[in-house]
Amino acid sequence: MSILVVGSVALDSVETPFGSADRVIGGSAVFFSAAASLLGPVRLVGVVGDDYPLDKLDFLTERGADLSGVERAEGESFFWAGRYADGLNSRDTLETRLGVFGDFKPRVPDAFRDSRYVFLGNIDPVLQLEVLDQVREPTAVICDTMNYWIEGRREALLELLVRVDILMVNDAEARQLSGEHNLVRAARWIQEHGPPFVVVKKGEHGAILFGPDWVFFVPGFPLEVIFDPTGAGDSFAGGFVGYMASVDSQEPDDLRRAMVYGSVMGSFAVESFSVDRFHSLKKKEIQRRIMEFKEMTAFEHQLEESSG
Amino acid sequence: MSILVVGSVALDSVETPFGSADRVIGGSAVFFSAAASLLGPVRLVGVVGDDYPLDKLDFLTERGADLSGVERAEGESFFWAGRYADGLNSRDTLETRLGVFGDFKPRVPDAFRDSRYVFLGNIDPVLQLEVLDQVREPTAVICDTMNYWIEGRREALLELLVRVDILMVNDAEARQLSGEHNLVRAARWIQEHGPPFVVVKKGEHGAILFGPDWVFFVPGFPLEVIFDPTGAGDSFAGGFVGYMASVDSQEPDDLRRAMVYGSVMGSFAVESFSVDRFHSLKKKEIQRRIMEFKEMTAFEHQLEESSG
Repeated sequence: MSILVVGSVALDSVETPFGSADRVIGGSAVFFSAAASLLGPVRLVGVVGDDYPLDKLDFLTERGADLSGVERAEGESFFWAGRYADGLNSRDTLETRLGVFGDFKPRVPDAFRDSRYVFLGNIDPVLQLEVLDQVREPTAVICDTMNYWIEGRREALLELLVRVDILMVNDAEARQLSGEHNLVRAARWIQEHGPPFVVVKKGEHGAILFGPDWVFFVPGFPLEVIFDPTGAGDSFAGGFVGYMASVDSQEPDDLRRAMVYGSVMGSFAVESFSVDRFHSLKKKEIQRRIMEFKEMTAFEHQLEESSG
Repeated sequence: MSILVVGSVALDSVETPFGSADRVIGGSAVFFSAAASLLGPVRLVGVVGDDYPLDKLDFLTERGADLSGVERAEGESFFWAGRYADGLNSRDTLETRLGVFGDFKPRVPDAFRDSRYVFLGNIDPVLQLEVLDQVREPTAVICDTMNYWIEGRREALLELLVRVDILMVNDAEARQLSGEHNLVRAARWIQEHGPPFVVVKKGEHGAILFGPDWVFFVPGFPLEVIFDPTGAGDSFAGGFVGYMASVDSQEPDDLRRAMVYGSVMGSFAVESFSVDRFHSLKKKEIQRRIMEFKEMTAFEHQLEESSG
C-alpha cells in the first residue's frame, strides 16, 4: 500500500566520536523514506533549496519511491549541524538554518492524494493539518512532533491529534504533551485525546506501543558501536509504517511486528553517517536482525497447574 | 536448591510522592529474601542491632527461610532515610547510619556452607570474598556491587570477579567498572574479567543479560503507579536467583526465564512500601504477570523465503 511522508529534507553536518560528515543528506522525510522504501512504495513531499544534491536521493527512486512531491525552491536547503558527546546520548546543535524549509507549505500532488498510509514528520502541526486536508481517505495517519510544537502550537496539535491513528513521540515529548511523568499515564492521556495507539520511543532503551488494552515492548538493538544516532527515530518510523503498509493491517500481531521492523531499521540507521547504511542494506540482513530481536526477547513459560 | 544471601538488613524511612513510611524493614538481603523465598529455600546472613523488629521477618521463616545467620549485635541497626522526587527516578539520601552494619563480619553458619546458590548483596568486596571462602562448592555465585566499592575497593572487587558466575549491576555501575560507556562493550569487559554472565539492570527500562554469545532483554513492567522504588533491584535479584535455584540450571532458556522472574519481582516490589507487597503475593499473581511479560514482548515472524 502507498505510503505518503511529509517532512524535512535536509543537509546535516555531524560530528561524532567516530568521525564527521559534512553536508550529507538527512531530515526526517529522508531517513523515513530510506527505511520505508525497503518495505513499500513511498511518496515524498518536502522542499529543498537550489543547493540540494538531488542525485543523492536517486537510490530512493530506484526503490520505487516517488519524489515528485519534492519541491525545489530558490534559496538554501534546511541545514543542521550537530555534535554528539562521547556517550552519544547528548548532542549539541551547533547550527540550524531553516532556509526554504522556513516557508514550507506542503502541497500534496494529485497523484499522492489517494495515499493509504500517511506519515506526518515533525513539522508545524498547522501544516500537518493542511496535509491531512489534502489526502482523501487514509487508512492510517501516523504522526511525529517535538517539544517546540508541543509548547508553541498546542492548540493546533490537539486539533490534529483527533485525526491521528498513531502518535509516535519520544518519552520526553510524551511527558511534556500530557503533563504526566509516568509513561503509562502519559500514553493514556494521549489516547484520550485522539490516537488509539501511542508509540513511545526511548532511544537505546527501545520503544513501547500502547494499544487500546495492550502494550508491546521492543528493545533497542545492543550495538557495540553507535556510529551516528542521527535519524534513528525517523528510521524507526520508516520501518514501522513501511511494514504496516506492506501488510495493510492494524491488527495487534502486525503492529507488534511493525515495532520490531521499526527498531531494526533504527538500529541500522545508526551504524553509519546519514542514510549510508540503507544504501547497501539487503532484505536478508533485515530478516536476520528481526530473528535476532526474537532471540533476544523470546522465552517459553509453562503455567504451573497447581499455582495458587 | 538452597540459596544463601549475604547483605544488609536495614530499617528504611522513605518518602515518595504517594506517602511516607517510617523505620520499615528493608536492606538488600531482606528484599532479596522476600522475593526469593517465594521460589526456594533462602538462608540469610546479616546483622541487626538490638532495635530491630525481628518479628517483622517472621513471614520469611513461614516461607521456609532460615534466619539463623542473622546476628544480633549491640547497637543500632543500619538505617537509611531517603526521599524520591516526583519523577521517582532520582532520590535524595537524607540520612545513612551504618550502626552495627559498619562492623559487619559475615559468618556463614556451618549448616549454610553447602549452599548451592550464593547471592552476595552489595557489601564490601573484601567481605564478599570472605563469604565465598566460607562456602564449599556453590553451583553459582551471583554478585552485586555499587559505585562506592568500584571506586574504593577496586582491587578486591577484581579479585572477587574471577570467582563470580553472574555479576548483577546497574548500567551506571557497569560503565564505571569497565570504563566503557557502551553497555555491550562494558559487559564484554566485565566478562573478560571473570563472570561469564552479566546482568545490567536499567530500572524502569528493564534489564539485559549478556551471555557468552547471546543476549536476552527483559523490559520493566509498565506500571501506572510506582509507589516506592526502594528495593526493586534486590527484588529483581531475588526473583532471578530464586528461579535459577528452583530449576537448578544455568541453561540459556532457564536464565531467560530467570530474567523474567527478576523483572516480575522487581515490579511487585515497587507497588508498596518496604516488602509489603510480598506478604500477600500469590503464586498465581506471579504466574499471571509472567504471562503479561510474554504478551508484552512476544511476536511471530515468518522468514521470507525469497529474501535476498
